[in-house]
Amino acid sequence: MSKVKVGIVKCGNIGTSLVVDLALDERADREDIDVLVFGSGAKMDPKSVEYVVNKMIEEKPNFIIYIGPNPAAPGPKKARELLSKSGIPSIIIGDAPGIKAKGEMEEQGLGYILIKGDPMIGARREFLDPVEVALFNSDILKVLAVSGAVRLVQEEIDKIIDAIKNNKDIELPRIVVDAEKAVEVMEYSNPYAKAKAMASYTMAEKVADIDVKGCFMVKEAERYIPLVASAHELLRQAALLADEARELEKAMDKVSRKPHNKEGKILSKKELMEKPK
Amino acid sequence: MSKVKVGIVKCGNIGTSLVVDLALDERADREDIDVLVFGSGAKMDPKSVEYVVNKMIEEKPNFIIYIGPNPAAPGPKKARELLSKSGIPSIIIGDAPGIKAKGEMEEQGLGYILIKGDPMIGARREFLDPVEVALFNSDILKVLAVSGAVRLVQEEIDKIIDAIKNNKDIELPRIVVDAEKAVEVMEYSNPYAKAKAMASYTMAEKVADIDVKGCFMVKEAERYIPLVASAHELLRQAALLADEARELEKAMDKVSRKPHNKEGKILSKKELMEKPK
Amino acid sequence: MSKVKVGIVKCGNIGTSLVVDLALDERADREDIDVLVFGSGAKMDPKSVEYVVNKMIEEKPNFIIYIGPNPAAPGPKKARELLSKSGIPSIIIGDAPGIKAKGEMEEQGLGYILIKGDPMIGARREFLDPVEVALFNSDILKVLAVSGAVRLVQEEIDKIIDAIKNNKDIELPRIVVDAEKAVEVMEYSNPYAKAKAMASYTMAEKVADIDVKGCFMVKEAERYIPLVASAHELLRQAALLADEARELEKAMDKVSRKPHNKEGKILSKKELMEKPK
Amino acid sequence: MSKVKVGIVKCGNIGTSLVVDLALDERADREDIDVLVFGSGAKMDPKSVEYVVNKMIEEKPNFIIYIGPNPAAPGPKKARELLSKSGIPSIIIGDAPGIKAKGEMEEQGLGYILIKGDPMIGARREFLDPVEVALFNSDILKVLAVSGAVRLVQEEIDKIIDAIKNNKDIELPRIVVDAEKAVEVMEYSNPYAKAKAMASYTMAEKVADIDVKGCFMVKEAERYIPLVASAHELLRQAALLADEARELEKAMDKVSRKPHNKEGKILSKKELMEKPK
Amino acid sequence: MSKVKVGIVKCGNIGTSLVVDLALDERADREDIDVLVFGSGAKMDPKSVEYVVNKMIEEKPNFIIYIGPNPAAPGPKKARELLSKSGIPSIIIGDAPGIKAKGEMEEQGLGYILIKGDPMIGARREFLDPVEVALFNSDILKVLAVSGAVRLVQEEIDKIIDAIKNNKDIELPRIVVDAEKAVEVMEYSNPYAKAKAMASYTMAEKVADIDVKGCFMVKEAERYIPLVASAHELLRQAALLADEARELEKAMDKVSRKPHNKEGKILSKKELMEKPK
Amino acid sequence: MSKVKVGIVKCGNIGTSLVVDLALDERADREDIDVLVFGSGAKMDPKSVEYVVNKMIEEKPNFIIYIGPNPAAPGPKKARELLSKSGIPSIIIGDAPGIKAKGEMEEQGLGYILIKGDPMIGARREFLDPVEVALFNSDILKVLAVSGAVRLVQEEIDKIIDAIKNNKDIELPRIVVDAEKAVEVMEYSNPYAKAKAMASYTMAEKVADIDVKGCFMVKEAERYIPLVASAHELLRQAALLADEARELEKAMDKVSRKPHNKEGKILSKKELMEKPK
Repeated sequence: MSKVKVGIVKCGNIGTSLVVDLALDERADREDIDVLVFGSGAKMDPKSVEYVVNKMIEEKPNFIIYIGPNPAAPGPKKARELLSKSGIPSIIIGDAPGIKAKGEMEEQGLGYILIKGDPMIGARREFLDPVEVALFNSDILKVLAVSGAVRLVQEEIDKIIDAIKNNKDIELPRIVVDAEKAVEVMEYSNPYAKAKAMASYTMAEKVADIDVKGCFMVKEAERYIPLVASAHELLRQAALLADEARELEKAMDKVSRKPHNKEGKILSKKELMEKPK
Repeated sequence: MSKVKVGIVKCGNIGTSLVVDLALDERADREDIDVLVFGSGAKMDPKSVEYVVNKMIEEKPNFIIYIGPNPAAPGPKKARELLSKSGIPSIIIGDAPGIKAKGEMEEQGLGYILIKGDPMIGARREFLDPVEVALFNSDILKVLAVSGAVRLVQEEIDKIIDAIKNNKDIELPRIVVDAEKAVEVMEYSNPYAKAKAMASYTMAEKVADIDVKGCFMVKEAERYIPLVASAHELLRQAALLADEARELEKAMDKVSRKPHNKEGKILSKKELMEKPK
Repeated sequence: MSKVKVGIVKCGNIGTSLVVDLALDERADREDIDVLVFGSGAKMDPKSVEYVVNKMIEEKPNFIIYIGPNPAAPGPKKARELLSKSGIPSIIIGDAPGIKAKGEMEEQGLGYILIKGDPMIGARREFLDPVEVALFNSDILKVLAVSGAVRLVQEEIDKIIDAIKNNKDIELPRIVVDAEKAVEVMEYSNPYAKAKAMASYTMAEKVADIDVKGCFMVKEAERYIPLVASAHELLRQAALLADEARELEKAMDKVSRKPHNKEGKILSKKELMEKPK
Repeated sequence: MSKVKVGIVKCGNIGTSLVVDLALDERADREDIDVLVFGSGAKMDPKSVEYVVNKMIEEKPNFIIYIGPNPAAPGPKKARELLSKSGIPSIIIGDAPGIKAKGEMEEQGLGYILIKGDPMIGARREFLDPVEVALFNSDILKVLAVSGAVRLVQEEIDKIIDAIKNNKDIELPRIVVDAEKAVEVMEYSNPYAKAKAMASYTMAEKVADIDVKGCFMVKEAERYIPLVASAHELLRQAALLADEARELEKAMDKVSRKPHNKEGKILSKKELMEKPK
Repeated sequence: MSKVKVGIVKCGNIGTSLVVDLALDERADREDIDVLVFGSGAKMDPKSVEYVVNKMIEEKPNFIIYIGPNPAAPGPKKARELLSKSGIPSIIIGDAPGIKAKGEMEEQGLGYILIKGDPMIGARREFLDPVEVALFNSDILKVLAVSGAVRLVQEEIDKIIDAIKNNKDIELPRIVVDAEKAVEVMEYSNPYAKAKAMASYTMAEKVADIDVKGCFMVKEAERYIPLVASAHELLRQAALLADEARELEKAMDKVSRKPHNKEGKILSKKELMEKPK
Repeated sequence: MSKVKVGIVKCGNIGTSLVVDLALDERADREDIDVLVFGSGAKMDPKSVEYVVNKMIEEKPNFIIYIGPNPAAPGPKKARELLSKSGIPSIIIGDAPGIKAKGEMEEQGLGYILIKGDPMIGARREFLDPVEVALFNSDILKVLAVSGAVRLVQEEIDKIIDAIKNNKDIELPRIVVDAEKAVEVMEYSNPYAKAKAMASYTMAEKVADIDVKGCFMVKEAERYIPLVASAHELLRQAALLADEARELEKAMDKVSRKPHNKEGKILSKKELMEKPK
């Protein structure tokens, strides 16, 4: 059987972007897929987006994931148009501002996963430098991992891969991810761990609100600097809470792990010393 | 003036891979560069690498960064050969196992940045699933950010961009990054913050040792599971220590921030409320 | 000079209720005021409220503070009517749901302080017992103290007391307290402490959203229990962040303290070992 | 059946004062009691106390709780005399200095609950301002909740309510609450959680010793400021330990919750997702 | 000049015992002293004590330090008698129970340093095993170091060494070490660090109270196990608070360090990067 | 039956030195052994070592333990020669640098336990004063206790005592203690606790590497001060991780305790409230 070719286009960055490809093949030993990633770095203007999306379409992958901030913005809008026209099954992975483009995406025949807890960064020059970018992404990765958003995205993509492998109809996901939806896939054993994970994700949603305010609505530096700084402090705290959730599951040796096997099947286990099944 | 076109090839993943492109243009407002990223996801076998490296060479960027684990392995070796032949100035960014390929890289006319504190992951199926991947990357990002490795890499790339913009000779970096080298660029004000950052980076080096042992040298699951688990626990602790270092600098309002301006110049500031200069 | 008699009516509970009287006279040595508190415990139905409000009006204090949840609810509405008719200058201290009664309160000639970061509790029987009540109040007190809400309320009341003492016109406060307004009065020296305090307060706002959802909008126990539990986890985390803010100010020996002197004047100091002035 | 009318008089403040009324009716849905609270704010001099105690006696509640610091001091002494004479069953809730009035209270026919772990505050002007008051109360609430003191007090009051509802003889409690007594009612599942809770309470006892020394026995500011500051640091640490105790119970999903039902019966549960019985 | 010969006898263990010799010569490069240690391990019965004390007297050191628990107990009493008779200047270092032997020690011509914050261990078989012993000693060392007790002891011994080196009269110390005395020698820059250090030491005093109760006064295992466990939890918390104190001094780069030079002189410094003077 | 006489010689200090004697008789109630300790304080030069080793040989104990840093250094080498010649069964307890003397020790007929995770201290005058010595030893004690090194050493010594008591042949241990060996004896119930304990021990190994570099290989103060400071920060973090491991075992009430009974037999238990068996 030939491999499924997964095309991923990354323009601009959300937390999920960092691991969307790695999450599909975490030990690089999966024999049923090839992953190709094209990206435009931090830029997500229409021209940058168009270039890499077209490149990807030329590659004729079995399906395409476009991932990045704000699916309603001009750049991602361009991507959506191109992908819709391409005839290749495609899904858009984005953040909360994409919710207002839900209707359009459905009309365009696109799938989508909109992750409310994957917030905008505090993009003010007085505050955001490359080191702060890395720290923000560190914190959001922790939240997205523990709250279930990473797994939810991975499992949805794996469903598409499965459908292609089995020549079934592809059902493109159309999901707005809130705390309850995210946490469900993590199969928490301890209800307090679950509550902490949910709180962590919800905190990340609030970060988005503050950063939007600090980046677009407040004009005075003496006000927007504390605002975006408070957003990153809030996210750091969300990451600490996510960590607590994980540690609680460790306390009962009940961390849910779902590794792929070589054939791409998702296995499952909870006790650390047991084999995944 | 035309923009500098930076080509980045990502095959497999090290912590630095996650932000190497974002670190160049942290608010996506830089007008002097275009970044193009091609990647093969988690895979780094010669065939996967060859495909994306060749794709990138075809794009004729001003220079190419190849980033991924173990520059001495067959896949990256292929990349080095192709890049060496391409005539495009290229640098390899990798981890500690790359040190043994230093000589070859120099002969190949390649630059390199080998980050000793960017460790191998605990790649055992009983342990590593997509969520654990995200958590590991969250922790290593924190360490790399606070210890200075992210900034060191970014500044070295910015030097190349600068040379190209100014039609100067490109001096490709050849650096093995240890704790002392990494931390230097962070310009710590508090010597204890510096010591914590160094310790954090050094801990990440030790993670690499344990994971190599747990992944390649120990065969029994009842031994290698605790080993790779201990490596990730160690890294989590390193991330907590990195966080402490950052908090200490906050305590004196002396966090060093070095944002780019729109022209790509690196500005600098320490007090949170001041303008970068 | 005769003392100013301050009447405080507490019906139901918000975090601020716990210390509103103590905050006026923190060492019980203030010679310029008498404080009288009447309350109906946890209840805030119209009948309970009416009883204690009428009692208080009979006492003829110089002014009256009514404090409790949701100033727009039937009980507090009753209080507002009675106080408005009483001719005694009165202010309503409440939480976010009171915002929709702002117009009415202005028409009623009442002052108000509406504290957005003083959230509803997770009032579900499966979750909330007396111990959880105490823990929630512990956490919210920490947030309100560090973020400035406690001081803001106290200073506004002190302004009224001052006006009465000096036979000046009373200007009743009409304030909706958000993070920026709260934190301003704390005169933070360290901008990161300020950012943490703001984040902490903002988190408490989010707690309110979740608890409203968990108490009024979701009907199934298997959903609302995790929701209200996540709200309390979020608040616990907000309290930890508030604590961090305070500790950062301690690190530079810059904790702002504003004790009253015996005459009720607000003094001020920052270094721990200095005398307040 | 008519409701039991509970009269609570608060003069001055101890930690337990903050929630004594709320603990009886944590979701404000209890149909068998009415609670009336009269207080004199921070003041507890004989005149202030007399005024509110007499007011309360006039209300003819079924029984009266007087709560505040040092039951042996002149103000509370006045309260005790008035309550003793009133013929209304009454109990005094106070702190460790009340122990020396035990004999008198027994002669006066009063019940008492003396909470050794509810310490005096660091009442020095250089240190104690309204914000510090709120923080101290936040910390002590955490300790009293987790150690069992809040529940012990609530259950003792509920016993009196029950007796009145059932026309039984009221047995007034006479209890000096130490760590062992407090923690017993919390029904800890994890013995380390219990040990932490006990330690936390015991720490609060030590806070009382230091604050008495710092407030009454040491005269020089350069000595008493560090002393009262160390008392509050100690209490903050006690609160952190209490929090650890609670988290340990969460780790096994064994947090004891004892909510009231609408009829005022005390239910019980341990697993978060189960119904209280 | 010949070296001063310091004889140290250790019978049984208090926290200070662990480092009393190391504290005199922290880098083993001091040229003015020889240290000889004789000990009887955990035992401190009269026979065990007598053996090693007599051995030490035979060595004719310039002075003798006897260190161990409870200087009023039979074993240490024997030591005091032998040392008093020996004619060699001697000091007893012990814990709080030694206070009742103060008078005797003065009559015996002995010096003493009684460290109230060096508590008895929770010596119950159900609780105390070799690992718990090590943990208890780890925690108490942290408290004694940060609170100043270690330095106070070392400086008092250094004064005796100095007197002997300079042929001056030896003034034997007679000190009961409480929190205020201990912390004074640490020359804290940050008053909150000082307050935390004091609180930490005071907590250790409370540990002693609980352990005495748990080891000698309570007979039932179901009561004494939680008691001694709570004592160790309390000490662990004291160690965490001590750590916080140290970290606060690091935050301002003001950790007081007082290393010896080769000649045994005590140098001093605060900024980490400076030379001691 | 006569008691076994255990002779312990301490010259210089490693973490294990602090408790090696206490670990044999943790409540001082063991009736089958006598322990005699002779030491030279911080010094470990040949002359100092020779004096106390000869003293100990004169005492004719049943066996001798020599404990201290670097068994390959001149002082310990002297000890080994003397002990080898003495005919008394002897073991050397030391740290990683002793590994290079393994062969010699075997030829000398000596046993050894070489603890890789018992690192050299940061012995630089600008950094190391008596207080820092105590803190370092506090941290390493925590690591050695939780990782199992303390128990491993104690059990090996107890085996020798047992052999002597039962007139069996003494098998001297020859062990190099790495993380896996240390942790085995702790019988962890929670595999994450075990992983944390292993990580903690491994971190301590890294401390040794840095301190050797900082003390012997780097000559410039501006480089070696941060290095040794980073080593101590790393160890502090290792101690925090060890503490986490212990807390995880507490969370399931599964802390392994192995107290001695009066006859010196090692008992065992896990649940806190149970009797050891």
